[in-house]
Amino acid sequence: MTTKLLHRGRAIALYLDRVTLPNGAVAELEMVRHPGASAVVPFVSPDEVVLLRQFRHATAGTILEVPAGKLEPGEDPAVCAARELEEEAGQRAGRIEHLTTIWTTPGFTDERIHLYAAFDLESVPTRRDPDEVIEVVRVPLAQALDWVWSGELSDAKSALALLHAARRIGVLA
Amino acid sequence: MTTKLLHRGRAIALYLDRVTLPNGAVAELEMVRHPGASAVVPFVSPDEVVLLRQFRHATAGTILEVPAGKLEPGEDPAVCAARELEEEAGQRAGRIEHLTTIWTTPGFTDERIHLYAAFDLESVPTRRDPDEVIEVVRVPLAQALDWVWSGELSDAKSALALLHAARRIGVLA
Repeated sequence: MTTKLLHRGRAIALYLDRVTLPNGAVAELEMVRHPGASAVVPFVSPDEVVLLRQFRHATAGTILEVPAGKLEPGEDPAVCAARELEEEAGQRAGRIEHLTTIWTTPGFTDERIHLYAAFDLESVPTRRDPDEVIEVVRVPLAQALDWVWSGELSDAKSALALLHAARRIGVLA
Repeated sequence: MTTKLLHRGRAIALYLDRVTLPNGAVAELEMVRHPGASAVVPFVSPDEVVLLRQFRHATAGTILEVPAGKLEPGEDPAVCAARELEEEAGQRAGRIEHLTTIWTTPGFTDERIHLYAAFDLESVPTRRDPDEVIEVVRVPLAQALDWVWSGELSDAKSALALLHAARRIGVLA
C-alpha cells in the first residue's frame, strides 16, 4: 500500500491510498483517518436516560444523540466516555460498562466508536467547547427506544448505544 | 456560511465550512459531503437473511455487512437498495420496505443511509465492481442478531438495519 496525505484538518485527515486488494486488483481509495471516539448512554435510573439535543452543521439542524466525543491521543476509550459524559452532560459516572464497538461507515473512514453505558451518576458542571450547542434532556428509556424505532433518533452511534444498553439491562429480548 | 472545496474525490468531497452557530459562535468545520446510500436486509425467509463478508480497506480486513451502496445522482433510495441487492448479493427483491434512515457520523459528514428490508427474493447474476471483494453468506436471522449483540457484526448501518428489520417482522420486542 502507498498512501498520500491530501488534507490534514482539525479532527480528520484525508488520504488517497493505493491498495492491492485480496483479489489482486489495485484500487485507489479515499480514506478519512479519524482518531476514534467514545459514546455513552447515561442511566439516571434503570428507566431513565440522559440524551443531548445537539446542533450539527452536517444535518443543518438539531439532532438527538448520546454524549460522545473523540479520543485524545493515547486516551483509554472508557476514560474518554467518562470525560465526555462530564463535559457535555454534566454527569459523573460511578460505573461505566463497555457495550460494543462499531465501524461508523467503513466505505470511506477508519473511524470506530466505542459504546458504553454509565450508571451511578452524580451532577457536575458541564465544560463545553464554544462550538458545542447542546441541550440536555432526561427521558424515559422507553421513550428513547421509541424514538430509535420511529426514526426521530437517527444518529447511528446513539441508536446502537441505546439498543445495546437496553439489551444489557434486560429490556430488549 | 461560506464553504471551500479542499478535495473532490471519487466518492466523497472534503470541504472547509465557516459557519455561524445558533449560539452566535463562528466555527470552521471540515465537512465530508457524500451523496448518501442505501442498505438492505435481504430475507430469504422470515428466519434467514443474506449477509456479505466484504473486504474493507478501512478495517484492514473483512467485515460482515448487509448489501449497500451509494446513491447514483437523482436515484430513488429504494431503487438504489434494490440495485445493490442485485449487484452485490445476486438477489432480486419482489418487495422492498423502508425501515429508517440514519446519519452515519454527523460530526464530520452529511452522509445518510436509507435502510430497507427486502422480501420475495429471486436469484440473479451478481454484477460486482472489480474492487468489491465479497462473499455471500446465508445465516439464520437469530445468528445475525447474535453477531450484532456480540460485536462480531460491528458495521453500524448493518447492525441497525438488522435490528430494525427484526423489529419490523416482530422478532424484537
